[in-house]
Amino acid sequence: MSSKFDKIIDYAVRKGFFWQSYEIYGGQAGFYDLGSLGVLLKSNIIELWREFFVKQHQEFVVEIETPIIAPAIVFKASGHEENFTDYAVECLQCHRTFRADHLVEERLGISAEGLKAEQIEEVIRKNDIRCPVCGGPLGNVYRFLLLFQTYIGPYSPSNLAYLRPEAAQGMFINFKRVYELMKRRLPFGIAQIGKVARNEISPRQGLIRLREFTIMEIEFFYDESNPTCDLLYENCSDEYINILRAEDRAKGIDKPLPISVSEAVDEKIILSPWLAYWMCIAKKFVNALGVPNNKTYFEEKLPSERAHYSKQTFDQIVIVERWGKLEVSGHAYRHTYDLERHIEFSRADLYAIRQLKAPKIIRRSVVKYDKNAVISFFGTKAPQVFKVLASLSSEALAKIVAESKGDGVVVEGIEIPKTIFRVEDVEEKVWVEKIIPHVAEPSFGAERLLYIVLEYAYSEDGGKVIMKFPKRVAPIKVGVTPLVDREPLEGIAHRLFKELKRHYYAMYLEGDSIGKKYAQADELGIPFVVTVDYESPSKGDVTIRDRDTKKQIRVPIDGVVKVIDAGLKGVDIFSLGYPIIERVEDKE
Amino acid sequence: MSSKFDKIIDYAVRKGFFWQSYEIYGGQAGFYDLGSLGVLLKSNIIELWREFFVKQHQEFVVEIETPIIAPAIVFKASGHEENFTDYAVECLQCHRTFRADHLVEERLGISAEGLKAEQIEEVIRKNDIRCPVCGGPLGNVYRFLLLFQTYIGPYSPSNLAYLRPEAAQGMFINFKRVYELMKRRLPFGIAQIGKVARNEISPRQGLIRLREFTIMEIEFFYDESNPTCDLLYENCSDEYINILRAEDRAKGIDKPLPISVSEAVDEKIILSPWLAYWMCIAKKFVNALGVPNNKTYFEEKLPSERAHYSKQTFDQIVIVERWGKLEVSGHAYRHTYDLERHIEFSRADLYAIRQLKAPKIIRRSVVKYDKNAVISFFGTKAPQVFKVLASLSSEALAKIVAESKGDGVVVEGIEIPKTIFRVEDVEEKVWVEKIIPHVAEPSFGAERLLYIVLEYAYSEDGGKVIMKFPKRVAPIKVGVTPLVDREPLEGIAHRLFKELKRHYYAMYLEGDSIGKKYAQADELGIPFVVTVDYESPSKGDVTIRDRDTKKQIRVPIDGVVKVIDAGLKGVDIFSLGYPIIERVEDKE
Repeated sequence: MSSKFDKIIDYAVRKGFFWQSYEIYGGQAGFYDLGSLGVLLKSNIIELWREFFVKQHQEFVVEIETPIIAPAIVFKASGHEENFTDYAVECLQCHRTFRADHLVEERLGISAEGLKAEQIEEVIRKNDIRCPVCGGPLGNVYRFLLLFQTYIGPYSPSNLAYLRPEAAQGMFINFKRVYELMKRRLPFGIAQIGKVARNEISPRQGLIRLREFTIMEIEFFYDESNPTCDLLYENCSDEYINILRAEDRAKGIDKPLPISVSEAVDEKIILSPWLAYWMCIAKKFVNALGVPNNKTYFEEKLPSERAHYSKQTFDQIVIVERWGKLEVSGHAYRHTYDLERHIEFSRADLYAIRQLKAPKIIRRSVVKYDKNAVISFFGTKAPQVFKVLASLSSEALAKIVAESKGDGVVVEGIEIPKTIFRVEDVEEKVWVEKIIPHVAEPSFGAERLLYIVLEYAYSEDGGKVIMKFPKRVAPIKVGVTPLVDREPLEGIAHRLFKELKRHYYAMYLEGDSIGKKYAQADELGIPFVVTVDYESPSKGDVTIRDRDTKKQIRVPIDGVVKVIDAGLKGVDIFSLGYPIIERVEDKE
Repeated sequence: MSSKFDKIIDYAVRKGFFWQSYEIYGGQAGFYDLGSLGVLLKSNIIELWREFFVKQHQEFVVEIETPIIAPAIVFKASGHEENFTDYAVECLQCHRTFRADHLVEERLGISAEGLKAEQIEEVIRKNDIRCPVCGGPLGNVYRFLLLFQTYIGPYSPSNLAYLRPEAAQGMFINFKRVYELMKRRLPFGIAQIGKVARNEISPRQGLIRLREFTIMEIEFFYDESNPTCDLLYENCSDEYINILRAEDRAKGIDKPLPISVSEAVDEKIILSPWLAYWMCIAKKFVNALGVPNNKTYFEEKLPSERAHYSKQTFDQIVIVERWGKLEVSGHAYRHTYDLERHIEFSRADLYAIRQLKAPKIIRRSVVKYDKNAVISFFGTKAPQVFKVLASLSSEALAKIVAESKGDGVVVEGIEIPKTIFRVEDVEEKVWVEKIIPHVAEPSFGAERLLYIVLEYAYSEDGGKVIMKFPKRVAPIKVGVTPLVDREPLEGIAHRLFKELKRHYYAMYLEGDSIGKKYAQADELGIPFVVTVDYESPSKGDVTIRDRDTKKQIRVPIDGVVKVIDAGLKGVDIFSLGYPIIERVEDKE
């Protein structure tokens, strides 16, 4: 067989980690099913993420869950309705739709980055690019909205809804609620793990580009003037991360350079200290999944590559065999963009309170109005006028009055005589001010990490596959087997299996020879195999074999769970004082 | 405050368990957000379900994950496109839409069960039922499809897709893949936990009737002639479950009766033995969530109440204060319905193989055809004819030929001379036969269980709330606090908290007095509070307080994790041999 990628996909499908969805109906691009081992591996990856990002920071990072379906206003406010698009072009003959920029890039080997629809269309016309499937002519290039649309309740424009393309908006719109629950203390983070959907145009990269996938995100809110990130200095300042800067990329440099996290912050290479902190945690997390430091780096995006909400973005890259590099997480300095937009669209108070060290004197114009004059001028219409006036802040009203020319002031369509208003300048002493917190966002895709874990665990030994999963994420933790499939060994093994499956996902191994059983366990990446051998019935002990060293220790049966618990937590089981056996394994 | 329900909702929103989604945009009925405590509680409920339903049965129940978005063909095949509807009626004045049957039931206090659209419409006309919001006249009653619609890729009828209303279909269409992975052994179960969406018409019951919720389902496949449910007899035969039978309900009886699981199977009260097995596990699971046996029973649905796919359905009911009863799970004997439909719609082989004890002689008609005659008759069209003929099974073709009158046989629109075909009777000896497995399905909604856990945990003691969560599902496992907020007690407490949060979701308690701190912990249902007191600095130990008895034990600091681990697993911490203290707690 050919490439490592092909071997891994073949392995994964054969063992039931994943496969394309809706196979019996011809398959559906961009959708994958996870089989039993895939679910276990993914859950373990998610749990590890939760551990690194939430549980270790549980005093100030909390997880919430919000719906996948959202009324359209949410993604209008977030800017997605306007910006979350790709260029599409339809074949006029077979009516398949393609990513227009990808067609150009593939055909001509040039970058279509930053081109407008008309420009891409011109390139297509000039170079006579045609449908890659049927050779037919291509239509106009247009912007295709990548949000899945639906309706909440009956079909009606006011019921338009979208499936979320990111979990982030659920966190932004709940900022105030969580802020109150966190006793109004900044900084804090809101985490969310859940499904998102992106209506990609003709996705073709299997598990790597999905129309539906699981995202793991944190929106981290902090006071920009006082980020208080002691944690950065406590846990990360001496850590080195590899960064490929945008300014270097623009010069054609593609070699990332190591830099300490604190230096990256001090020299403003990373603009947000909390972005830097979570990048450091991201590096440690990816290491824990089996990716060494020299195989991962952060690539800063060029301004033209950044999402509409971001002031600075780093993609965390992992080197892979197939594509050279694969983005496994994005780190965006979302700044105040999202909260500002939701304040604008909802008129809700999504501010935090900053305590001032000294009071601030505020001078401002306020507008008062003569209620009796309103009543006598408007009569029965007066209540409506009061309602309109009350809906505006004093500042907003002052601005309207100041900007009005002539004798009348038009407020939401109602003309009110200027004489009714009186503008006063007032002075106030305040000890707090409202701020919009800044936001740093680390965002991971679980399915890509699943692929990464498979690629980095994959190894071969004499033609046999050994999946060297980090123990914490291995789908099946322990195998149990009798040395030979005979009594009394079998009975002991069965009882032990029954006990072990109360604690772990375990497997009772069957096979012709012990060598084949071990090979089976290695192929599934099972870290430990417990073997009941000829000495077990009389001595009440068993052996525990370590996947990576193939060495074994002899352990009393009632100590097995303790040893495996320790081993899974990272303890070297050979340091526990049990007799070590090096057996020559049956190779058949 | 009034009812227990109101108190629980008030408590849950205040503490941030959950709240209505999209509040800043006016809220959206049928959608709820979970806050931090809600996420922890729900995850623990899901983990416990996984433990009872999957992990304990891991040799033959495996979990998979399939997408929420599905091409329309899937739900056409499943019968949902045709049957998954409710009666809707729109107000002609304010254009709000309502459940027509619910309007009738609420207004007239009669059941609209089983009525057709025209009949409901007639009742509405005759009784002059009007819009409950604006009093306007109501339009026609129509069947409203409860599937959320979307499009995969560009808008086009062939790209129509639905959001799944149940996880089940993802398991059915993957039956064959998992069957192969399970080495073709029946019985086995496929489990799935994930989001589903139902476009309910004007849902109004908060967390109880959601448009988007998390389902936990098993499709359990077995050979009906040989169900081999030894487990039923091993684990459940002596267990009693409460059943309210459909035939009793039809007579107006509403008192469930206890019956042993094996008796219910033997007397065909439960038609599928595996349905009975999972009902038994469901009872134990709900018990573990804090619901005693006399507060839960299984209500058999009447034929008119059953979903289109079910031959028998039991709803698992839990008694609740607000609605009297609440359905927390459904147990459907889906029989062969779904696999049959997918075989019909996909033409895929979704059969299992049954080994026969003795060979069976099969006599059947096969059709052969003269290829040369096809070529000479059809010329260049011959390849197309071969393709059509090859797409049909020999039996299907024999049937068409046998049923054709006249000289020609019409196959998929092509007329073929009868002389080309030759029908032969053949006899075969077979040792296996193809079967469609029968299916028993237990299906739970996670959010309803979350409400149930809150209601059954809720208690008051002298005006103070104590949430008596079962320890396994309590969101926060342990609190840590110094007896007074002073050094050196505080320092020890902080270090202990740092250690404990590596293991558990923990909370550092702050407050004016130890009594208030304990009250705070009780209000959150924290099972154990570790207190650093005046003796701690010199003796190196702390006290551990048990939420339910309010008694404490003195434990060395390095033994705390072991004691809490044991306590969370259900061990009585007062049996561990540590000194027991009964302190009078500060009541302020």
